[in-house]
Amino acid sequence: MRKFILAAVAACFSLAANAQQALWSGETVVSPDIHPDNTVTFRFKAPKAVTVQVTGDFLPATLVDVPGRDMKMEAPGVANLKEGKDGVWEYTTEKPLDPELYSYSFIVDGLKVMDPANVYMNRDVASVTNIFIVSKNKGDKGDIYSVNDVPHGTVSRTWYNSPSLNMNRRLTVYTPAGYETSKQKYPVFYLLHGAGGDEEAWIALGRTAQILDNLIATGKAEPMIVVMTNGNAWQDAAAGESPRGMVPPTMGGAGTQNVKPAAFELSFPEIVSFIEKTYRVKADKKNRAIAGLSMGSFHSENISKYYPDMFNYVGLFSGAMVGDGGMGNQSSPVYSNFDSQMATQFAKKPALYYIACGKTDFVKQGVDQLRAYLTEHNYPFEYKETDGGHIWRNWRIYLSDYAPKLFK
Amino acid sequence: MRKFILAAVAACFSLAANAQQALWSGETVVSPDIHPDNTVTFRFKAPKAVTVQVTGDFLPATLVDVPGRDMKMEAPGVANLKEGKDGVWEYTTEKPLDPELYSYSFIVDGLKVMDPANVYMNRDVASVTNIFIVSKNKGDKGDIYSVNDVPHGTVSRTWYNSPSLNMNRRLTVYTPAGYETSKQKYPVFYLLHGAGGDEEAWIALGRTAQILDNLIATGKAEPMIVVMTNGNAWQDAAAGESPRGMVPPTMGGAGTQNVKPAAFELSFPEIVSFIEKTYRVKADKKNRAIAGLSMGSFHSENISKYYPDMFNYVGLFSGAMVGDGGMGNQSSPVYSNFDSQMATQFAKKPALYYIACGKTDFVKQGVDQLRAYLTEHNYPFEYKETDGGHIWRNWRIYLSDYAPKLFK
Repeated sequence: MRKFILAAVAACFSLAANAQQALWSGETVVSPDIHPDNTVTFRFKAPKAVTVQVTGDFLPATLVDVPGRDMKMEAPGVANLKEGKDGVWEYTTEKPLDPELYSYSFIVDGLKVMDPANVYMNRDVASVTNIFIVSKNKGDKGDIYSVNDVPHGTVSRTWYNSPSLNMNRRLTVYTPAGYETSKQKYPVFYLLHGAGGDEEAWIALGRTAQILDNLIATGKAEPMIVVMTNGNAWQDAAAGESPRGMVPPTMGGAGTQNVKPAAFELSFPEIVSFIEKTYRVKADKKNRAIAGLSMGSFHSENISKYYPDMFNYVGLFSGAMVGDGGMGNQSSPVYSNFDSQMATQFAKKPALYYIACGKTDFVKQGVDQLRAYLTEHNYPFEYKETDGGHIWRNWRIYLSDYAPKLFK
Repeated sequence: MRKFILAAVAACFSLAANAQQALWSGETVVSPDIHPDNTVTFRFKAPKAVTVQVTGDFLPATLVDVPGRDMKMEAPGVANLKEGKDGVWEYTTEKPLDPELYSYSFIVDGLKVMDPANVYMNRDVASVTNIFIVSKNKGDKGDIYSVNDVPHGTVSRTWYNSPSLNMNRRLTVYTPAGYETSKQKYPVFYLLHGAGGDEEAWIALGRTAQILDNLIATGKAEPMIVVMTNGNAWQDAAAGESPRGMVPPTMGGAGTQNVKPAAFELSFPEIVSFIEKTYRVKADKKNRAIAGLSMGSFHSENISKYYPDMFNYVGLFSGAMVGDGGMGNQSSPVYSNFDSQMATQFAKKPALYYIACGKTDFVKQGVDQLRAYLTEHNYPFEYKETDGGHIWRNWRIYLSDYAPKLFK
């Protein structure tokens, strides 16, 4: 009797996988198949398909028309797979891929389809794509974005109360390896997402935990806490993590119109106060940094000048502006007196004012304006320029470049 | 100049979504569309498709042959969508759905395809499906599995060192709402996954954070810490979270064969010790519970009898056995002297020994054997039987039933 049961149990462990495959479409293919020379083969089993394509940021981008607007924007390239034995379609990159985290999807007879051989995905607003990482040498981008055999920090999703926004709100908090046992206090780096993002964006698309684990393990960055906020003042938490339920994520959303100008910026001290009460931190300006991408960059610029005693390190990734009125010519003390706020902030000599932007980013003109303004006023800053536009590839680079400069 | 930049920024926020849609397949459809009466409509835009089907556990299961074996197993039902206007296919359930978390996928011309209108998914081993929740009344299953407007606990992914398994290993830890500020000590519930699972299984498929948040908020369960371990002794962390990289998840895996019998069970005190050093806990038997599903149920049975002073509450969900030798007739002190280990455990009068199983579960025979054994020896236990088999629907029910019985 016992033998029978054990056999049944053992059988089930393997048959679950078998049966699933039987249901879902037959034998397993390997995809993406990253070869030793870093060329990559994509495979997709679809015996009945007429065309199978792969699209992703590993292919050269193409310019496409923006529907309804007189603009073009970069879109991921598309390559055709060829049908081989048993209905397995295949495409191999012409050249080895550079170290990077890439995203891709298949297009089967015009339909976007996830790779059934790859469970790894990222969500960017409402778009889900498969991902993979290519690395060549220790310390290259692919390596820094990977989970390596180094001590790992803890990643927590926790909630703080915001009286000013009148809700409990979700945060993602990275504490460095050793936090639990060291009894030390740590500096804190506040890291802000862009429009359409939330407190999940930096940890997933930005690979914050991997980047910090690796930079800290190799001595390139100081051990620090990283706090990834939700910068949508109308929203308590990422899509699916709030009582709003499993609603489709959007760039804006219900409630946006009820938010007062600069509500998020004005509420920021509530986050700092929660963190400094909850974690073992060094609670002074010298040990606080802020940075953000796109909308989060505007937030960082505004928060750091409106609260000039709060942050010693300021990072603006792909977004900057000069003048009053915020992004929509809004009336708020945060968006007033730009010149005097900047004068006060720089009179207090922040340790680092860091700006980064892609050469083809559509916000570059605003970034150049702020650089000119800072230069004109003799306000010191660092500037990093990279290829490409308003994309996560750049924001991971900026994070990897900025974090090592903090708290030294 | 500034106006231009603001316009460009504003434009981009909406055009990103537009352009993506243009790339990915046109206008948005709503799917799944949960109607007020809890019938549900699934929609899929595929103008060129010949057949579009939906499969999922909201449909009556069908029996299918297991390839290569003389067995049948339950498989999710399949329903056909009908093509309507603009190539949008549609299917509406015949009846309202009962409160539950459901999973589904589309099948387009024989290919499994995720729902492009739904970013919510669960991974079960290597299979990814979309999910949705149906609820009717406060306190029903759908409600208990949902994020509600109640205080939320913190969910952390953290790493502990296991000298006996010779690696750093990943844990998912739920601390209840108020943990950060209460200064109280909490009881701890160790919750173990099944074969093919890992430290992500209970938090994602099991909805542990939502279930505990809701049960604690309504006073049905005591505030407690829940520790979700990784029970694969050959593995440091879930797929994608370890230096093994983004490998396909499997039921077993490389390294399995090097693991000594009962290695995970023997290493368990390392986890308890880490938790009791790291969190504010009540560190005694009265305040420790364990439970697991399937393989994790065998683990819980074995750990609780081999360390009879450790756990006051023991939960066996869909898995139990009687006798020496473990699951594979293995030689280990953990799998020896079953009778005397059980006698010792029950002489120490655990507060609760809880067994739960589905009526059609393939492990039911082993569960019935253990129930007979316990009855024969006058060892007290509680038993809960539900419809259905070896599935997450049951494990969420057992967790919701078991957690309120702890630490009272």
